[in-house]
Amino acid sequence: MPVQSGSPIEIVTLDWVPDFARGYVRDFRVRWALEEAGIGYRTDPVSTVARPAAYFAEQPFGQVPAYREGAVRMFESGAIVLHIAERSEALLPRDAVGRARALSWAVAALNSVEPMLMELATVDRFAQGEEWARLRRPSLVADVEKRLGQLAAALGTRDYLEGRFTAGDLLMASALRMLDHTDMLAAHPLLAAYQQRCLARPAFLAAIEAQLAELRIEMPEPA
Amino acid sequence: MPVQSGSPIEIVTLDWVPDFARGYVRDFRVRWALEEAGIGYRTDPVSTVARPAAYFAEQPFGQVPAYREGAVRMFESGAIVLHIAERSEALLPRDAVGRARALSWAVAALNSVEPMLMELATVDRFAQGEEWARLRRPSLVADVEKRLGQLAAALGTRDYLEGRFTAGDLLMASALRMLDHTDMLAAHPLLAAYQQRCLARPAFLAAIEAQLAELRIEMPEPA
Repeated sequence: MPVQSGSPIEIVTLDWVPDFARGYVRDFRVRWALEEAGIGYRTDPVSTVARPAAYFAEQPFGQVPAYREGAVRMFESGAIVLHIAERSEALLPRDAVGRARALSWAVAALNSVEPMLMELATVDRFAQGEEWARLRRPSLVADVEKRLGQLAAALGTRDYLEGRFTAGDLLMASALRMLDHTDMLAAHPLLAAYQQRCLARPAFLAAIEAQLAELRIEMPEPA
Repeated sequence: MPVQSGSPIEIVTLDWVPDFARGYVRDFRVRWALEEAGIGYRTDPVSTVARPAAYFAEQPFGQVPAYREGAVRMFESGAIVLHIAERSEALLPRDAVGRARALSWAVAALNSVEPMLMELATVDRFAQGEEWARLRRPSLVADVEKRLGQLAAALGTRDYLEGRFTAGDLLMASALRMLDHTDMLAAHPLLAAYQQRCLARPAFLAAIEAQLAELRIEMPEPA
């Protein structure tokens, strides 16, 4: 579903990011969920270099995305994805058992997988060259490798974590993209194939294309 | 609601933990949610020192808690709390706007607050004495202080994050307990009072009491 100027759903995005973050700004998760659900949306880019102070009243940490829909105001991409999932069987099975499994995987992605990958991103990018990052990396990589092995074991030979695609896969594959600067998934061929399967979905490709189309190439002048 | 041997809800807990973890094992979050909702439960402690290999089929990372209810099988305390919240207005407002806010805060706790507090716990406890931890701590503490300031600003003078208690507060207060070994909350008196308010709730106190009553004092012999 393309961006629709008349949609009642509005996502707050960024107007510009450095090259390494293009296609990775977290609004892609919400765009992806909306594409899977077949729900249109419009966007309201906020300034990256001069985030308006008023935006913190909407997003306590100044992050993107935020989500507006009538009187509903949400923040945290994981929460927004779960909110969208509640209205689409494409993201959340209707039966209680399947729904509970999808929710378990969604939170596993957010709280048991992504945190150590965020830490690795800090070590490899934001703290690159710092002595603590160099000393920390081996034990952190060992932790990540262990977690990936556990995830691969849980996936087994299934196409998706519970057989069919859910919001849990959307959030897990989104988290695993934080390893794109490494070759760590290659050690687990079935998990790597799972990741490729998630990222080959038309809804994901449309989400990334839409994000890239809206991000400015040149850093805007500060206001 | 006390532990009830006949309850259809079963939580997998640990049988023993080191002293520093007593009262902090993550099943307290699920016990707390069930207490708030007035729903009874029973427990099935798994061995801490010799986690059965079969348990990984139920909890991919070998963590506790896991949750069983009829054919429903869940893992991740955050997911289980949200699952319980869906059946109790004590944890989740019935209106769409309030529900979306509670969900936003729940995921903020899990994905934007807890990860850096987990990292601080690693630095201060599990990697204590390591050179990288010593070098990392100042920048991490600065990040945590900034996030706490943002959280305090969002809370303002309200009793709870959205005025009334929700699953979002339950998960936020649970995450903030990871700072119990520090005095970092003291810099934000309203946030510190919020935390005390959450942890003074009878449901929280009952949850901790129940966890402590079931944990063995002495480390069991490995099987």
